[in-house]
Amino acid sequence: MDLGLRGVLAPVLTPLTPDLQPDLPRMVEHARWLLEHGCHGLVVFGTTGEATSFAVEERMAVVDGLLQAGLPGDRLLVGTGCPSIQDTATLSAHAVRSGCAGVLVLPPYYYKDVDDQGLFRAYATTIERVGDPRLRMVLYHIPQVSHVDLSLDLIARLVESFPETVIGIKDSSGDWAHLKALLERFPGFGIFTGTERFLLPTLRHGGAGTICAPANVLPQSLRTLCDRWETPEAESLQAQITWLRDLLATLQVPAIPGLKALVAQRTGHEGWLRVRPPLLSLSSEQRERLQAAVAGRKPQAEEGGALHRVWTEHRP
Amino acid sequence: MDLGLRGVLAPVLTPLTPDLQPDLPRMVEHARWLLEHGCHGLVVFGTTGEATSFAVEERMAVVDGLLQAGLPGDRLLVGTGCPSIQDTATLSAHAVRSGCAGVLVLPPYYYKDVDDQGLFRAYATTIERVGDPRLRMVLYHIPQVSHVDLSLDLIARLVESFPETVIGIKDSSGDWAHLKALLERFPGFGIFTGTERFLLPTLRHGGAGTICAPANVLPQSLRTLCDRWETPEAESLQAQITWLRDLLATLQVPAIPGLKALVAQRTGHEGWLRVRPPLLSLSSEQRERLQAAVAGRKPQAEEGGALHRVWTEHRP
Repeated sequence: MDLGLRGVLAPVLTPLTPDLQPDLPRMVEHARWLLEHGCHGLVVFGTTGEATSFAVEERMAVVDGLLQAGLPGDRLLVGTGCPSIQDTATLSAHAVRSGCAGVLVLPPYYYKDVDDQGLFRAYATTIERVGDPRLRMVLYHIPQVSHVDLSLDLIARLVESFPETVIGIKDSSGDWAHLKALLERFPGFGIFTGTERFLLPTLRHGGAGTICAPANVLPQSLRTLCDRWETPEAESLQAQITWLRDLLATLQVPAIPGLKALVAQRTGHEGWLRVRPPLLSLSSEQRERLQAAVAGRKPQAEEGGALHRVWTEHRP
Repeated sequence: MDLGLRGVLAPVLTPLTPDLQPDLPRMVEHARWLLEHGCHGLVVFGTTGEATSFAVEERMAVVDGLLQAGLPGDRLLVGTGCPSIQDTATLSAHAVRSGCAGVLVLPPYYYKDVDDQGLFRAYATTIERVGDPRLRMVLYHIPQVSHVDLSLDLIARLVESFPETVIGIKDSSGDWAHLKALLERFPGFGIFTGTERFLLPTLRHGGAGTICAPANVLPQSLRTLCDRWETPEAESLQAQITWLRDLLATLQVPAIPGLKALVAQRTGHEGWLRVRPPLLSLSSEQRERLQAAVAGRKPQAEEGGALHRVWTEHRP
C-alpha cells in the first residue's frame, strides 16, 4: 500500500488577501504552475503553507476550492496535524472524503515530553475516528519546530498496527543520520526528505522523494534530479538545488516570506508578500536584496542567473 | 483597568466521557467545588485543562455549558490561545460575549524563533478581530511548553498599545528571576504565578495571585495563604502548599493525570482518570502509589494527612 505519489511534492505557499484570508484564485494559479513545472504532487497546508495559522474551516475551504478549480485530488496530500486529535480527525476525514491522495500528520505539538505510548494513542485514535479504509497517512517529523520527536520504535509500531494506513513519513529533521536510519529500517516505506540537499542520497537509499519549501520556486530543478538520479549528472543536478536555501540563509531572510517574495517577483502579484502573524513579511530592504540576488543582477550570482532562466522560460 | 479577579484561580481539570468528550456535568460539579472551597475564580482550558487537545467548538460548548449551569461568568477566565489567530479571536470573542471576566492567551506556538514584532502583530490582530472594548486579556507565558518567549519589551509594548485590554500575565516559567523582573517592571499589572511555591513572594511584590494546577486539589491551602500573607504565619502557610507538586515529582507522576487521579479519589468517579491523547492516564501502579501517599496511609506522609483532612472536612 502506498500513496501513489513519489518524487517532488511542493508544500504550496498560501497567498493571502489584504485581510489575511487565503486567496484562493491566486493559490489555484500557483498550484497549477507547480504541477505544470515538474511537481509530481502538492502538499496543501504544510509548515511552508502556514497550516497552523489557519482555522479548521479555513483549511477545509481551501481544499474544497482547489478541487473545485479542477486540481487533481490524487496528486494532493493535505497537512492535517493539529494539537487536538479531534481537529486532526476532522481535517483528515475531510481530505479522504474529498478524494485527496493522503494526509501529512504532525504529532499533537503542544504538550512536550509525552512518551511514545501517548503519541501512539494520538495517531491511533485519529485513525480510528476517521474510520475510512481509504486513509493514507504520511507522518510528519519536524522536531526543531514541533519539539515532539517521532522515534523509530513509534513509527515501527504504527506501521505494524496500521499497515494499510501509515504508509510514509516526511523527515524534516535536517539530520542525515536520522534520515538514513529511517531509510535503512523501513525499506519500501514512503520516505520523503524535507531537506532538498538530501534528495539524491534519499533516492539512492530507496526513498520516495522530497517535500521541500524551495519546490515552490525551483520545481524543475528538483524534478530533473528525480528523473536523472541514476545518471552521471546526478551529483551536479543535486548541487543545483541547494543554492536557494543557502542564499536565504546568507541573506538572513526567513524561508516562508522569502519564498513568497520570490513568487511575488515571478507573478508580479504583490499580494504574495503577505503572511499571517506570527510570521512577518520581509522588510522592503530584505526583499530588494533577495530579489536582486535571484534576478542575477549581481555578477557573482550564478545561481540567480539559473533561477532567472527558469522563470523566463516558464513565465505564462 | 483590571480583571476584577485576584487571588487563587484554579485551572480546572477537564473530565472526560468514555469517548473522550468533555464530561460537562462532572466538570460543573468540580468547578462548583473549587469555588466553594476557596478559589476566587477559575480558568477554563488552561494547560492543566488540556485546552489544546480540544477543538474550538468543543471549547465553546464547555464554556456555554458552565455558564448555563449557573457558574458565574465574572469569575471565569477562558484560555483561548491557539496557533491560529483566527481561532484565538473566535474563542476570545465568544468568551467576552458570554460575559466571562477575561481570556488567558498563549502566543501562537507552532512557529519558533519568531520575533517580538511577529508576536506583537499576532496579539494585536487578535484584539482587533475581537473588536470588543470589554475584552480583558491575560498573557500566558509558559516557555518550557510553548517554546515561545514573551519578552518584557513585548509585554510593555502590548500594555502601552492596549492599556484597557492587556491587563495581566500568567508566568509559568518556573523562574523566580523572571517573575521578579515582571513584578518590578510592571507594578499594578495583574501578575499571576503559575508556580505555587512563588505565591508568597508574588503577593509581597504586589502580584495578583496564582493560577496553578494544584489548586484543583488544594484550593483551601492556597486561599488561606492569599488571605493571610501579611501575617506571621505566611511562611508556614507557603510551606504547606508546595508538597503536592514535590510529591508528584518524587513519585514520577505527570501532573495532569496525577491531579485527575486525586479528583477521582475525592469524588469516587473513575471517569476522572481519563485524559485525551497525547497525554496518558496513570498506570494502576502509579495511581495506587499516588493515592496511597496522599491518603496518609504511609506514616511519614504528613502532607498526605493534611490533604486527607481537607477532603474529609469538605466532602459534600
